[in-house]
Amino acid sequence: MIAEIIAAGSEMLTPFRQDTNSLYLTARLNELGVSVAFKTIVGDNLKDLTGAARVALERADIVIFSGGLGPTEDDLTREAVAAALGLTLRRDPQILTAMYKRFAARRMTMPENNSRQADVLEGAEVMQNVNGSAPGQYIDTVVGRHRKIVVLLPGPPNELKPMFEAECRPRLIATLPERHMARRILRMALLPESKVDAQTAPIYKKFKDVDTTILAGSGEIQLHFVCSKPTEAEAQARVDELAETIEQKMGEAVFSSHGESLEEVVLLMLGLRHMTLAAAESCTGGLLAQRLTAVPGSSRYFLGGAVVYADRLKTTFAEVPEELVRTEGPVSEPVARALAEGICRRTGASVGIGITGIAGPGPGAPGPDANKPIGLVYIAISYSGLSGGTSVSELNISGDRERVRLWASQHALELLRRSLIERM
Amino acid sequence: MIAEIIAAGSEMLTPFRQDTNSLYLTARLNELGVSVAFKTIVGDNLKDLTGAARVALERADIVIFSGGLGPTEDDLTREAVAAALGLTLRRDPQILTAMYKRFAARRMTMPENNSRQADVLEGAEVMQNVNGSAPGQYIDTVVGRHRKIVVLLPGPPNELKPMFEAECRPRLIATLPERHMARRILRMALLPESKVDAQTAPIYKKFKDVDTTILAGSGEIQLHFVCSKPTEAEAQARVDELAETIEQKMGEAVFSSHGESLEEVVLLMLGLRHMTLAAAESCTGGLLAQRLTAVPGSSRYFLGGAVVYADRLKTTFAEVPEELVRTEGPVSEPVARALAEGICRRTGASVGIGITGIAGPGPGAPGPDANKPIGLVYIAISYSGLSGGTSVSELNISGDRERVRLWASQHALELLRRSLIERM
Repeated sequence: MIAEIIAAGSEMLTPFRQDTNSLYLTARLNELGVSVAFKTIVGDNLKDLTGAARVALERADIVIFSGGLGPTEDDLTREAVAAALGLTLRRDPQILTAMYKRFAARRMTMPENNSRQADVLEGAEVMQNVNGSAPGQYIDTVVGRHRKIVVLLPGPPNELKPMFEAECRPRLIATLPERHMARRILRMALLPESKVDAQTAPIYKKFKDVDTTILAGSGEIQLHFVCSKPTEAEAQARVDELAETIEQKMGEAVFSSHGESLEEVVLLMLGLRHMTLAAAESCTGGLLAQRLTAVPGSSRYFLGGAVVYADRLKTTFAEVPEELVRTEGPVSEPVARALAEGICRRTGASVGIGITGIAGPGPGAPGPDANKPIGLVYIAISYSGLSGGTSVSELNISGDRERVRLWASQHALELLRRSLIERM
Repeated sequence: MIAEIIAAGSEMLTPFRQDTNSLYLTARLNELGVSVAFKTIVGDNLKDLTGAARVALERADIVIFSGGLGPTEDDLTREAVAAALGLTLRRDPQILTAMYKRFAARRMTMPENNSRQADVLEGAEVMQNVNGSAPGQYIDTVVGRHRKIVVLLPGPPNELKPMFEAECRPRLIATLPERHMARRILRMALLPESKVDAQTAPIYKKFKDVDTTILAGSGEIQLHFVCSKPTEAEAQARVDELAETIEQKMGEAVFSSHGESLEEVVLLMLGLRHMTLAAAESCTGGLLAQRLTAVPGSSRYFLGGAVVYADRLKTTFAEVPEELVRTEGPVSEPVARALAEGICRRTGASVGIGITGIAGPGPGAPGPDANKPIGLVYIAISYSGLSGGTSVSELNISGDRERVRLWASQHALELLRRSLIERM
C-alpha cells in the first residue's frame, strides 16, 4: 500500500511557508507499514486541486489531503475531491447544528459561509474535529477496479493531529494488514553531527534490520532507530539492543534515551534531588524560563526568575552590585556569577542560573563591553546551602541573534544537567 | 507562465527531511513573474519520477527538477526526463573529460558509475556546477503544441543556488516576457479567519489582477497580496491600493501594514512615545519577554521583568501582597492588577504588564483557584505616572497548554497595542 499526501494551500506555494503536516503524517503512516511515495503541494484553485486529486488517485492507494476545509471560498478540498471521485456533496444537518451551537456558546453569530463546512461527500464517514469547526472526512471506495482510501484532514496541526489519532488511525488499522514497528530515539546536546556519526556508525551499521537516521539541529543530535518485525516484541528487542549499545559508547553525552526533551530531563533530575531552580536571564530574555515552563508540571521545580535585560534590573532583581556592572561590563564572568548567586538568594531556590551575553546583531554596549564579540556568553550555575558553590562557563557561539539565544539556553540546560550528574 | 517544482529524493519522503530548495526557487521564480502552481516530492524510483515528470509537463509551462543528478544508481532524474519527453541521452565527451580531470586533480580514480553524470538530454544546454560534479541541464522544447522549459538542477543547496543564479536565471530572463511582481502583507491579531474573510472578500475580489491569500495561525491572520505587471510601479500601485482599501475597512484591527510582527509594532509604538515596558509573567513563564527580546534593539524599550511562576516570587519581584494571593487565588483579577502595578514600580518602567492564568493540563492550585477552568487568563496593563491607571482583561482561551500560553502572550501584546493607540 502506498500513499500520497496532498497539502492544499496557496500559502505553501510562496517562499514563506512549508508544508509540515506531511512529516507528521508520514511518521504515522510508516508506523502502519504504509510508505509515502508522493507529496504534492497545490494552491487554493479548484482546477489544480481537482487535477492533483485525479493524479493521486491514479498512482496511490491512500490519498490524504491536509487543508482546504475551512469556511472561506479559498477552501476547496471538498469540492475538488467530489469532482475527482465523481461524488456529490450533501449538507449535513447534524454538523450544521453543532456548528451553530459552537458559535452560540461563544455568543457569536455564525457567518453564512461557514455552513460550507457541513458539506459531506456521498459515502464519507465524518471525523470529529475537537479543536476546530471543520470536520474531516474518510472515504473507502473503489475507483476503476482499485480500492482507494481518501482522507480529508484540516490544515491547522492542532486540528489535524488529534483527528488523525482519534478518528483516522483506527480506521486505517482496521483496513491494513498487521505489522509492528518499534522506535527508539537517543538525544545528545551540543555535539557535532560528524563526531556522533563517526562514533556510532560502526555500531548501527551492524544492525542491518534497523533503520537509523541522524538528525541535527537546534543544538542537539537525535539518533532515530526504527525496526519492523512480525511481532512488537521482536521489533522492540532490536531497537533496544542498538540503543543500549550506543548509549554505552556515548556515555553521559546521551541526555535522553526515550526521546524526552532536555528541559524534561533537567526538571526530572531536579525532582529526584528535591531541588528547585530559578534563572536570571539577560541575553536569552526569558527563553530559558519559557522552555522550562512549557513542560507541564514544571512549577514544582522551576520557581521562576527575572529577565534582567536592562542593567538596572540586574541589581533590582538579582542583587548584582552596580559597581560590578560598571567596571566589568554586563557581559562578564563576575556579573554572570553574581546573577546566579543573587537569583538563588532572592528566590530561595536550590540552584540559580545566570546568563549574560551579546546576542547581536549590534555589538556590546559602550564601556567595558564595547569590544567584546557577538556570541560571547557567560553562563553561571550556583548551588545554595552548605554544599554550595558557583561555576561559570565562557562560550563563543557563532551565528545570528536567534541562534546565539537558542544555543545559550541549550548550553545552560546542558551545563545544569552535567553539574547535577556530578552531584548525584 | 506557471511552474512546477519537482524535488527528487527518497529522504524527503521520510518524517525527517523537508524539501527546502523549493522555497528558494519559488522566491527567484516569483521575481521573474512566474508563479509556482505545484510542488511535487517523489522518491528515487524511475517509474514514479517519470510519471511525475509527465504529469508536470501536462500542467505547467516550466518544470524545475532538483536532485537526482548524482552518480549513484538512485540518481534517476536524467533518465526520467528523457523518458517523459521521449528524448535520448548521449554521453558528452567534454563533460566526461572534465570529470576525469576533477578526480585526477584530487589524486583519485573516477568510479565508473560517475560517468552517468555526463549523460545529456538531446537538445539540452549544459549548465556548469561550480560546487560539485553534477552538471545541470536546460531544455527549451515543444510538447504537443505547447512550449515547455525543463530545468534539471542538483539537489545540494550550495550547488543548486549558484547554478540557478549564474546559468538558469539568465536563460529564463531571455525567454520570459518582462514582468514584475509586488507584494504586500497586512497582519491582524486575534480575529477569526471567517470574520476577516467575510469583511475583506468583497474588497479583494474586485482586484482581479491581485492574488490574495489569507493565512491563519498562532493567534493572527495575514493577508498576502501579490500582483504581477509589466512594470514594478504598476504592480506596486495595485497591491498598495488594495492594502489601503482593506486597512480603511478593518481600521485598528490591522496591526501591521508592511509585514512587521506584533512584537516589532509594539516596540516601535513604545519608542515613539518614549516609553519603557516591563512584564511580570506567571502562566506564560517568560514567553512574552522572550518574544519581545527576540527583536533586535528591543533593549531600548523593554527593560525586562520577572517570571513569577512560584507564588512567593509574585511577592518578591512584583510586590503582590501575600494576603491577596491567598484570598483571591494567584489566578485572579486583583493579582493580575497587582502584578502589573508592582512590576511597573519595581522596574521604573512606564508600562507594566501582569499575566496570570491556568495553562493546564492540570487544574488550578488548591484554594481559591481550585475550580477555575483551564484557559482562564487575566492580563493587566498598568501605566505609571500622572496619567496612570490599570486595566485588566479576563480571557477564556481554548486549547492545550502550548496554545493557552501562546494566545495569552498574543493577547497581552494586542491589548498593549490597543491601549497605546488610545493614549496617542
